[in-house]
Amino acid sequence: MPRSPRYLILADENFGPETSKTANACIRYTPDHVVGVIDRRQAGRTAQQVLGFGGAIPVVATLDEGLALKPNALLIGIAPAGGQIPPDWVRLVGRAIEHTLEIWSGLHSFIGDIPELAALAKQHGVTIHDLRRPPAKLPVSNGRVREVAATVVLTVGTDCNIGKMTTQLQLLGKLRARGIRTSFAATGQTGILIEGRGIGVDAVVADFIGGAAESLVLECAAESDLVLVEGQGSIIHPSYSGVTYGLLHGSLPHAQIMCAQPSRTAINRCEWVKIPPLVDFIRMSEAAAAPLRPAPVIGVALNTYDLDEASALRAVETVHRETGLPTTDPVRFDPAPVVDAIARFHETRPR
Amino acid sequence: MPRSPRYLILADENFGPETSKTANACIRYTPDHVVGVIDRRQAGRTAQQVLGFGGAIPVVATLDEGLALKPNALLIGIAPAGGQIPPDWVRLVGRAIEHTLEIWSGLHSFIGDIPELAALAKQHGVTIHDLRRPPAKLPVSNGRVREVAATVVLTVGTDCNIGKMTTQLQLLGKLRARGIRTSFAATGQTGILIEGRGIGVDAVVADFIGGAAESLVLECAAESDLVLVEGQGSIIHPSYSGVTYGLLHGSLPHAQIMCAQPSRTAINRCEWVKIPPLVDFIRMSEAAAAPLRPAPVIGVALNTYDLDEASALRAVETVHRETGLPTTDPVRFDPAPVVDAIARFHETRPR
Repeated sequence: MPRSPRYLILADENFGPETSKTANACIRYTPDHVVGVIDRRQAGRTAQQVLGFGGAIPVVATLDEGLALKPNALLIGIAPAGGQIPPDWVRLVGRAIEHTLEIWSGLHSFIGDIPELAALAKQHGVTIHDLRRPPAKLPVSNGRVREVAATVVLTVGTDCNIGKMTTQLQLLGKLRARGIRTSFAATGQTGILIEGRGIGVDAVVADFIGGAAESLVLECAAESDLVLVEGQGSIIHPSYSGVTYGLLHGSLPHAQIMCAQPSRTAINRCEWVKIPPLVDFIRMSEAAAAPLRPAPVIGVALNTYDLDEASALRAVETVHRETGLPTTDPVRFDPAPVVDAIARFHETRPR
Repeated sequence: MPRSPRYLILADENFGPETSKTANACIRYTPDHVVGVIDRRQAGRTAQQVLGFGGAIPVVATLDEGLALKPNALLIGIAPAGGQIPPDWVRLVGRAIEHTLEIWSGLHSFIGDIPELAALAKQHGVTIHDLRRPPAKLPVSNGRVREVAATVVLTVGTDCNIGKMTTQLQLLGKLRARGIRTSFAATGQTGILIEGRGIGVDAVVADFIGGAAESLVLECAAESDLVLVEGQGSIIHPSYSGVTYGLLHGSLPHAQIMCAQPSRTAINRCEWVKIPPLVDFIRMSEAAAAPLRPAPVIGVALNTYDLDEASALRAVETVHRETGLPTTDPVRFDPAPVVDAIARFHETRPR
């Protein structure tokens, strides 16, 4: 990233709590590096007003208004299904390049592969960062993770966009504060943006999903004693389950943290797939891992942003009682119950 | 393919029953189109002697000897783990192009993307067919298969290279002979080579595995009443399970046919993963499909090529007794038990 990034975030007409995942994570974890958000529908409001966090970061209607905020980079902050770049964005990105903004994108369709933008970037000496571009060479996975000493913990979830990355980021600092050398293995474009390293496992050639996960965990394990792996998708997601399973069987976690949203009863945009009761879903997740390496679910991270405080607390208590597992909303409440569970597991697991 | 293909198959030093899957399928299903096999280790023998089928097709040591057999195409007949093309093959393929042979390849690494070979092919007017090259645009899957009237049957298996493609090809003609309009949805390079159509689901970008499977099934369902989908990998394969699940949840079969090899107790080249007892594995496969659409396993196809006749018959009887399912080795014995099971399922399933 630029030495001191000042991101202008493009969120088109989709800036919101559930619709602009990359923008939101960037605002949550690196707010000092965000100068503004482009969304003509929300223009005039602040990030705080739209998301419930992010303070005074302004939302503007156009690129020109955004340029007045003195950004040095344009970040594509939303990820449309399928990841294809809409044609009208090409013009906007082109104008940003002409204003010498670096380009950061997590789309499947690479900005740097659009000839006119690549040419413009070259002409203006601007770097284009395509976060999902996979490494040139990836191996096929074959259980090499079993040979490292580090403890591997994977977040899994009932659906996409439910807290698998956010949970790991909330836990990371707390585990480090306890003196455990902990690393974060970023597997999606937003995690990579925040961590500055990682592999977008959903963007590699299908045969190499597991290999990408394995490579990344090995790299993280070489410099830490506990690896927090960012999960992807869901084992029941009709579009993305392949990525979910490849990541599970490539990263071979010792333990799983289950992410769920109490109010969500079906897969988003695939409502025909009902989410089973959480106790059953936990059993399914453990069964999916077991033939390769047993990975018990040792804690639950709930996403209660759409519940009032009392309902959120009640949801945490209910899930704790039903599953018998340490449970919290690691964003809204103290992450300690799940932090404790991971620390205890890490210190006591048989080696 | 050429109007009347005459393949010379490159199998390097790997021509054998378990090591040259693409070569073997081509020899089994289109023997009249194969003039010879290159493998310096097996040179002087016939396909029949090496594989147990394929008749008098000769094995030769070099490209020059192969050219004497008057081929009009070179087929890369083996698929090394990871699919990368070894550097010394580039020279051989180049010489084949200079002799105006068409090139057919199912490798992950595309022959047509090697600049010197692409240039040579252009110069000599030769076509390079990279069977794994994915379609330019793929959708994300979202259960569209549920809207078609055709019955969808997927082969699944305990491991790779165990009979998922071969089983479907053995069943295809028999089901057609019963008057059922049946199509074959090829999902791997060899199936595509034989069928002349398909998508190599292991070669698409990971997020689109399900979308590739969905597109293919929709295409096949438009022209048939029964779609036989070629399965890939295994739900417990440490390298390829992502492809397996993406294919399962994208193709949304109504029923599964389980492929297994009685003598195989662990995943090939990943022996640390033990294959569960078949009855348990069948239950796991049904559980993997159930949250999206229930897909009972309705028959078992055994691969008994490494057993003597009496042991093979005993294995079929044992599995039939233990699973309660119609069981056969569809290559060695009459495929009728599984053909009957599919026809009955197709005719009687609730609609």
